[in-house]
Amino acid sequence: MFKKYNVIVVGGGHAGCEAAIAASNLGSSVLLVTMNMTTIAQMSCNPAMGGVAKGQILREIDAMGGLSGIIADKTTIQFRMLNQSKGPAMWSPRTQNDRMRFSEEWRLQLESRDNIDFWQDTVNEILVKDGKAVGVKTSLGIEIPGDSVVLTNGTFLNGLIHIGEKRFGGGRAGEKAATGLTEQLISLGFTAGRMKTGTPPRVDGRSLNYSLMEEQWGDDKKGKFSYTDVETPKEQRCCWITYTNESVHETLKEGFEKSPMFTGRIKGLGPRYCPSIEDKINRFAGRDRHQIFVEPEGWNTVEIYVNGFSTSLPEDVQYKALRKIPGFENARMFRPGYAIEYDFFPPMQLDATLETFLIKNLFFAGQINGTTGYEEAASQGMIAGINAHQRINDQHELILKRSEAYIGVLIDDLVTKGTEEPYRMFTSRAEHRLLLRQDNADERLTPLAHKLGLVSQDRLDKVNEKVENANTIINYLRKTSIDKDLINPILVENNNSPLTQNKKMVDLLTRPQLNIYDLANSNAEFKVLLNKFDEETIEQAEIKVKYESYFQKEFELINKMKKMEDQMINPDFEYSKLNSLSKEAREKLNKVKPRTIGQASRISGVTPSDISVLVVHLS
Amino acid sequence: MFKKYNVIVVGGGHAGCEAAIAASNLGSSVLLVTMNMTTIAQMSCNPAMGGVAKGQILREIDAMGGLSGIIADKTTIQFRMLNQSKGPAMWSPRTQNDRMRFSEEWRLQLESRDNIDFWQDTVNEILVKDGKAVGVKTSLGIEIPGDSVVLTNGTFLNGLIHIGEKRFGGGRAGEKAATGLTEQLISLGFTAGRMKTGTPPRVDGRSLNYSLMEEQWGDDKKGKFSYTDVETPKEQRCCWITYTNESVHETLKEGFEKSPMFTGRIKGLGPRYCPSIEDKINRFAGRDRHQIFVEPEGWNTVEIYVNGFSTSLPEDVQYKALRKIPGFENARMFRPGYAIEYDFFPPMQLDATLETFLIKNLFFAGQINGTTGYEEAASQGMIAGINAHQRINDQHELILKRSEAYIGVLIDDLVTKGTEEPYRMFTSRAEHRLLLRQDNADERLTPLAHKLGLVSQDRLDKVNEKVENANTIINYLRKTSIDKDLINPILVENNNSPLTQNKKMVDLLTRPQLNIYDLANSNAEFKVLLNKFDEETIEQAEIKVKYESYFQKEFELINKMKKMEDQMINPDFEYSKLNSLSKEAREKLNKVKPRTIGQASRISGVTPSDISVLVVHLS
Ligand SMILES: Cc1cc2nc3c(=O)[nH]c(=O)nc-3n(C[C@H](O)[C@H](O)[C@H](O)COP(=O)(O)OP(=O)(O)OC[C@H]3O[C@@H](n4cnc5c(N)ncnc54)[C@H](O)[C@@H]3O)c2cc1C
Ligand SMILES: Cc1cc2nc3c(=O)[nH]c(=O)nc-3n(C[C@H](O)[C@H](O)[C@H](O)COP(=O)(O)OP(=O)(O)OC[C@H]3O[C@@H](n4cnc5c(N)ncnc54)[C@H](O)[C@@H]3O)c2cc1C
Repeated sequence: MFKKYNVIVVGGGHAGCEAAIAASNLGSSVLLVTMNMTTIAQMSCNPAMGGVAKGQILREIDAMGGLSGIIADKTTIQFRMLNQSKGPAMWSPRTQNDRMRFSEEWRLQLESRDNIDFWQDTVNEILVKDGKAVGVKTSLGIEIPGDSVVLTNGTFLNGLIHIGEKRFGGGRAGEKAATGLTEQLISLGFTAGRMKTGTPPRVDGRSLNYSLMEEQWGDDKKGKFSYTDVETPKEQRCCWITYTNESVHETLKEGFEKSPMFTGRIKGLGPRYCPSIEDKINRFAGRDRHQIFVEPEGWNTVEIYVNGFSTSLPEDVQYKALRKIPGFENARMFRPGYAIEYDFFPPMQLDATLETFLIKNLFFAGQINGTTGYEEAASQGMIAGINAHQRINDQHELILKRSEAYIGVLIDDLVTKGTEEPYRMFTSRAEHRLLLRQDNADERLTPLAHKLGLVSQDRLDKVNEKVENANTIINYLRKTSIDKDLINPILVENNNSPLTQNKKMVDLLTRPQLNIYDLANSNAEFKVLLNKFDEETIEQAEIKVKYESYFQKEFELINKMKKMEDQMINPDFEYSKLNSLSKEAREKLNKVKPRTIGQASRISGVTPSDISVLVVHLS
Repeated sequence: MFKKYNVIVVGGGHAGCEAAIAASNLGSSVLLVTMNMTTIAQMSCNPAMGGVAKGQILREIDAMGGLSGIIADKTTIQFRMLNQSKGPAMWSPRTQNDRMRFSEEWRLQLESRDNIDFWQDTVNEILVKDGKAVGVKTSLGIEIPGDSVVLTNGTFLNGLIHIGEKRFGGGRAGEKAATGLTEQLISLGFTAGRMKTGTPPRVDGRSLNYSLMEEQWGDDKKGKFSYTDVETPKEQRCCWITYTNESVHETLKEGFEKSPMFTGRIKGLGPRYCPSIEDKINRFAGRDRHQIFVEPEGWNTVEIYVNGFSTSLPEDVQYKALRKIPGFENARMFRPGYAIEYDFFPPMQLDATLETFLIKNLFFAGQINGTTGYEEAASQGMIAGINAHQRINDQHELILKRSEAYIGVLIDDLVTKGTEEPYRMFTSRAEHRLLLRQDNADERLTPLAHKLGLVSQDRLDKVNEKVENANTIINYLRKTSIDKDLINPILVENNNSPLTQNKKMVDLLTRPQLNIYDLANSNAEFKVLLNKFDEETIEQAEIKVKYESYFQKEFELINKMKKMEDQMINPDFEYSKLNSLSKEAREKLNKVKPRTIGQASRISGVTPSDISVLVVHLS
């Protein structure tokens, strides 16, 4: 019934969709097998994409020809660049999205690919021959042959939903769990674990009193994720902010004795950084309020996502507590929050290509690897899709370095240290975050993607042009001095000390209070030059100049670390005296006494920052 | 957690949605409880609305303030008025629809009602007190109080899906079944039965060769279901027609020994008039081909619905057979066809209001009553929603007569005769079908709907205006003679015998080959008059004039029948001699020997047509 596909992708979530697109981009024939074709790319939890570190991942996916960014852009109902008051490494794009449109757009994009086929069914077995994956078997008993298989089952494997003391099987609320696959994988020798995650109740927007909340509008100047010319909606929708209070907390506490987490009924570990509201109350007993983001689920629907109020307490407790939040006095719920426990496969069973060590040509991506979040899932899907194609064509594998991409950090963390709790990305996980910015993902990754065949020559040309143009601007700033009489009024106006003599523009731009347009306003020739380029190019030049010294140090560190990989450490080195090491690292290093920096870096519990500290200290 | 609602609607399918809207229209507070808020108003089977007899039902729903027609109009990808070569009683509007838009539009319409709330959950118990429904209990254990309950569970009650020899629980492919409710209802004294229905495979439109099929375009002049000014899409999409052949049939037969139906694994009776392809081959062994309609599932998706190929044979047999259909040589499937068995409640347990006899304030509507089809479900939902409201407010119940509406025929059939197999509407079921046309549903039902409070005064005014305007036209035709010298050229041109003397326009219009615009072309004053009115009004006048004598007879028959209700029948009447009675009726009547026509009409097996025959004979 089926031809033999190059790549069979199991699961049409964020990981599965990107896996299919990546393999398709490279020219593989792809079959996407998913339980329900009407739930492709469902946002299981919040209707939002990006955010701190996650926005950077989306930009990276986009730079490599993935579609999550483009689809998020097309379905944006609100855009904000977070952390704009901080340095550019922290700037993080984030969108609210229309849930239905997002899913529809993904489906149409997949359908538009000639080399992607679809099959609605549940996979419950991987076909294996001579230690290699050679296809899948479905709950209908159908065997589908494939050269490689990418598993992206999300939260569906033996999913168990908890609300208070009630529990029932399910992959998401209202959907079936997937059974059989975990058991087969275990019989093949894999180790499985159990995790949990949670989601807040959804409420009826018509029942809220927005006048008691703070409005939160999107940015006036709307940005986007994609480096391409995607059209984004003109309008934006408002969101709101409100807060819990002591009375909300007291009410929630009434449900603690029925909490599936506090009573130990949930075995799996939950995401420490997306805690449930009961977790927050418990862990931060001193805080008398927590922020709640009130987010619409789309352009027209009245359904509201109560961001910050994830919970698996009994639904009547959820309800009572919700109604004590300002603006929620008359709130009606559409559906209660819940927790879900599911099987995952500890990712140290994977190579950095996301191929399993045990079975060749079998790849895992997404939540099945113990991560949480759409962006984390999508990026793994892309890498797995690429490597599945490369593997079956005897081509070079793709492993992004920690110094190249957040995606590199993510996968390196997973496969070298594993994870005990749902892993989500943070900027702090990336020791080279200064270089892994949302503004330069194209420069970092598009050339690489082009070499692999993921993106067109045209797209590479555009990136190169942008880099060259930015360099043109930078060179001008380097060689040109500014006339102190022209710039001084501007400096004074900005509370900046005036110049006593003319100065190179490049030096002046490092002043924090001054931006590149201020310089253009005092140099007509420069203004003419800038007018030739688009905003992104100008911004790129500005960032590179402003933070050049920091970037330079970072580049040097990376080079140093490369060399240090093989550098010996004195076995008698006294780690306990190095206070800037984490406590865990000091203990582990003292115990293992590694002979090289490379070895030290592979010890679980020793973070990349610990290694940086060591490197700096030893050099 | 919940206030007490006036009407709790269980299930967000076609029946549930209309039930909620009807109760909302009347001012009830409504809670819609449904298993999955993202599948509201899913089209489980074909993405099409209306058709023969069903199109009439949609017009009736629209005339009474229901929304199925409006939503179908807004999401139309192709419109056709079927049977235009026949008399106006047979004209039947039908649309292809965008499945996703249809569901989305329903959800947004429901959300726009202030008095409709939502809860995503599964109901598994009706709360009963003193023989009255007083609310529902959900799988979360939540009790929700309500003055009345409308059950619209569709195919979900203990749903069991069959594909070849495989079977598994489910309410629809990829969705969970609903359990518990049937068992509780049985414990309350209800009788449950089992039915089955089926659906064809969906295929990938990109894999079809349309050049081997016949194109089927929509009408040039696109009509609509709604009498209101709803905007419908400008464009239309093409559909295609192809045919099975001997080789397809032979291939299908290979699967017969694994067919869940032929081997007796399926106990429930299927819809005789939507047979599976294997049924058709079996029953019409002489036919060497069957028509297949190739219908897109929406504006942009490549998913194709293979209308006419419903099947529950093993998926590999489906596949092999499909590929022998012209144009399907390289077809790829998205998902296989399947049959589903589900519980229904024989509808003779219901009053004509759709309230159950056993439990007051409990109503059943839709597929749960043994019907099949979206329109049948939607119309029952509307009636149940209305009567739930009326009941709890001690207002008059609404029972549409068989002479008033197809909906009246549908419900009367269900509650007086029950049904053994899935019941679908046909024009032949309506003995007064000449009067129950798609063109006059507004005139028939909007005044009644207005009296109940379902539609606005404004809407009633428009209907009255249309009727008056049509009468103005008719009166003109009645009183005015046409000049033979002006009309004769037109008559001759139309192959019509010329007039030898002037004639009343009204008499001329009864000629089949002549239409109202021909008359206008030979009478300038009449042309000016027609120009004042819209097409629908003119059409109405034309139909009323052209078919006046038939309608008159029908009206007289109805009046006669009303009088005959109490008319005595001689107990010695020899039914066996009345050949125009059905065989079953002759037997039953001979046995029961009813004393009045009224009594005769209530005998199961005696159809309304049998009664007409009796009435004509006795008068
Ligand atoms: C209740 C809940 C709360 C969450 N809360 C958060 C949160 O607070 N923060 C956060 O960052 N993330 C959260 N997430 C996680 C986020 O939804 C996931 O990280 C992300 O969706 C994972 O993407 P994925 O592609 O790995 O899997 P999913 O999006 O889960 O998609 C899996 C897909 O695979 C299909 N599938 C599964 N098994 C099979 C099979 N055997 N055969 C065929 N198809 C199969 C499913 O139908 C589905 O389409 C939450 C998820 C859930 C369910
Ligand atoms: C496989 C298949 C093939 C079909 N083929 C045809 C055909 O060929 N021709 C034809 O005319 N018709 C066909 N139909 C029938 C058509 O789909 C139905 O007649 C129509 O959808 C019935 O509408 P409904 O509102 O009664 O139920 P449905 O549309 O089935 O909706 C039922 C709703 O109730 C919800 N629900 C069920 N139980 C519960 C509960 N306990 N608690 C909360 N919510 C609940 C469900 O989630 C769903 O939203 C087919 C249906 C199926 C499933």
